[in-house]
Amino acid sequence: MEGFFRVWPIDRVLELVSLCDPVETEEVPIEAALNRVLAEDVLAEEDLPGFRRATMDGFAVQASATFGATEANPAYLNLIGSVAMGEVPTISVGAGEAVRISTGGMLPQGADAVIMVEYAEMIDDVLMEVYRSVAPGQNVMMPDEDFRKGEPLVSAGRRLRPQEIGTLAAFGKGAVRVYRKPRVAIVSTGDEVVPIDCRPAPGQIRDVNTYTLAGFVEGTGGMVSRFGLVPDRFDRLLERCLQALDEADMVMLSGGSSVGMRDLTIDVLEAVPESRILLHGIAISPGKPTILATCGSKLIWGLPGQVTSAMVVFLKIVRPFLERLCGLDASSVVRRTVEAVLTRNVASVQGRTDFIRVRLRKETNGWMADPVLGKSGLIHTMMRADGLVEIGMNTEGLEEGARVTVEWFD
Amino acid sequence: MEGFFRVWPIDRVLELVSLCDPVETEEVPIEAALNRVLAEDVLAEEDLPGFRRATMDGFAVQASATFGATEANPAYLNLIGSVAMGEVPTISVGAGEAVRISTGGMLPQGADAVIMVEYAEMIDDVLMEVYRSVAPGQNVMMPDEDFRKGEPLVSAGRRLRPQEIGTLAAFGKGAVRVYRKPRVAIVSTGDEVVPIDCRPAPGQIRDVNTYTLAGFVEGTGGMVSRFGLVPDRFDRLLERCLQALDEADMVMLSGGSSVGMRDLTIDVLEAVPESRILLHGIAISPGKPTILATCGSKLIWGLPGQVTSAMVVFLKIVRPFLERLCGLDASSVVRRTVEAVLTRNVASVQGRTDFIRVRLRKETNGWMADPVLGKSGLIHTMMRADGLVEIGMNTEGLEEGARVTVEWFD
Repeated sequence: MEGFFRVWPIDRVLELVSLCDPVETEEVPIEAALNRVLAEDVLAEEDLPGFRRATMDGFAVQASATFGATEANPAYLNLIGSVAMGEVPTISVGAGEAVRISTGGMLPQGADAVIMVEYAEMIDDVLMEVYRSVAPGQNVMMPDEDFRKGEPLVSAGRRLRPQEIGTLAAFGKGAVRVYRKPRVAIVSTGDEVVPIDCRPAPGQIRDVNTYTLAGFVEGTGGMVSRFGLVPDRFDRLLERCLQALDEADMVMLSGGSSVGMRDLTIDVLEAVPESRILLHGIAISPGKPTILATCGSKLIWGLPGQVTSAMVVFLKIVRPFLERLCGLDASSVVRRTVEAVLTRNVASVQGRTDFIRVRLRKETNGWMADPVLGKSGLIHTMMRADGLVEIGMNTEGLEEGARVTVEWFD
Repeated sequence: MEGFFRVWPIDRVLELVSLCDPVETEEVPIEAALNRVLAEDVLAEEDLPGFRRATMDGFAVQASATFGATEANPAYLNLIGSVAMGEVPTISVGAGEAVRISTGGMLPQGADAVIMVEYAEMIDDVLMEVYRSVAPGQNVMMPDEDFRKGEPLVSAGRRLRPQEIGTLAAFGKGAVRVYRKPRVAIVSTGDEVVPIDCRPAPGQIRDVNTYTLAGFVEGTGGMVSRFGLVPDRFDRLLERCLQALDEADMVMLSGGSSVGMRDLTIDVLEAVPESRILLHGIAISPGKPTILATCGSKLIWGLPGQVTSAMVVFLKIVRPFLERLCGLDASSVVRRTVEAVLTRNVASVQGRTDFIRVRLRKETNGWMADPVLGKSGLIHTMMRADGLVEIGMNTEGLEEGARVTVEWFD
């Protein structure tokens, strides 16, 4: 019952991430695997490239035949043929011999280096002068130089970037096992809220949270189920909440920010069979009136109705939980940050973690972070901002000129 | 003809971005507009929220009635009713009166401030003691406090983040005009290259560039048309190239890296009707043998076949052109970078811009950048790296301990 009596510090809330388990896995073709989270460790099934390749256009030779060669004292070699791209050379290179080869070609037997075309000259159809020496292995990629058979390629829990997809392609993995995209249901409530295609009467506003939260869920790698607006009535909200739990891996209710609305959310969450309310209130600003409950292995969030609060809570609290559902290895997640100089004083309250929205400006001597001030019901504060600055629980505020770390949105 | 005789510095190549025009526009529902590029300036069509809203739970009052109120000397007000959420209050607040209101509720006539519920106490059913004074406007959001009618909301050329989508929702814009996703054709060539579902014979390798380049194109906001592998023969390559030009807004040929392959690419590009080869060779490493041609308003790139070179050229050269096709306002594009300390010497050559791959490690006193060394045909150098460090044309290299700016991949 502890959750009811005091707000939780953010660190303790984030410790609950380990309560979640990643969703199931599925196999997808690598053409569709960009940004998906790998669900299996992939090992190199063979050496790559698997044969000795020339990395320059030139001549495959025995390096020792070039030792000491200079412009004044060239080495002389006999050109005995050429390597066709993509084929195994049938020719073999002896001590005083050379074979023409293109970048990417397979080195013939006997050869152990490639002389760049710039450093050789044909005297006649066969005889070649060489003006530089090459070391054994020079301008040659060894059979296991990119990857050695059995070596780990990509680990489970990593998001696949283009270069990982390319590496999988290089090993002929046309499909990979990834975590499926977790489904997140968004339920919006509030008697003052109307769907966006309605013209709000005085006293009403359009539903914003469904749209902002959906965007952040998609950006994190989830799939959104939009449950739309539900009236602030116990039975209707409970019914939609149960439907959402049935369909989704995680549910986000974004309620109004009034005490009455929060009480309704709590009542509904308590009425969900086998639910357990883990916490009610987090020591952050904006976003204090956040609720977290579980129903079996599923999480249900009660997010603040204020648009900025809901976004900040998603980014700083909900997102790590969703990343865990996505199967992401937390150690592989790096938030993009930038160091900047704060351009005005920002007050804060001890005992809670504050997140201030800042706009970034690049000046000659670095980044400047302009705090975007405004109430947490104002969406423009998020739109004019590029990122968030955290002010720790034990800090009373930050002064103009302070060096801060700004976490970019996206 | 200048392009044929010398390599171009990177800055001059990037000046050509202005040759491109953004693709056409289309209207999409805002549910599908995340990360799309807005193609119209959107203005606020009304004030937002459009009415005076309470930002706290409490009592709507005339502020002047509370002036001087303290615990020791409370003000006394008569509670005359309450505001229902989402409705226009029918009640009006006089000098000594108060009306109960929830966060998000519409302020009644006469009231100009909200007293937080914590600072008031009911003496009986009607009489209320107030322990704090409020200033006019306190705990109230003004009708145009989020946006004022006519004010710019989002500008053309911006990529839409969740907060922009939410702002469009707040104004009831269910659909927006965005640039369509430019189509980029990827044509892979090389007699030594085989499709990824084939088992390469000795001397052959699988097609990697189609996969890595497709990933980067998608990440930039383009749509990929995969033209697959084309044999290194003039007529076949020309035919596929013409098909690609027909279907796509931009074409990328990724050839082998041999001189013969480059010559073939040049021959093919010259044979494309109305083509013009703009440049052949850029003073960068990796990626020097890059070719750029135009056919009418379309760009055709000849990218190096080496996998790492192709990726670096895409990121540092092709991407700004593709962003321009996408309609992005260049001033709104910020590459995510991080300052780090280089952990070993890196050599470079004057007269060209080098891009070294680095792996980032966070230590207590900041980020460390470990150069990932290796030939540009090795894909593992890109996979083990987190980003790129640029070494300028006039620099001979960087020393261990140098402070560098690392641009993150993605």
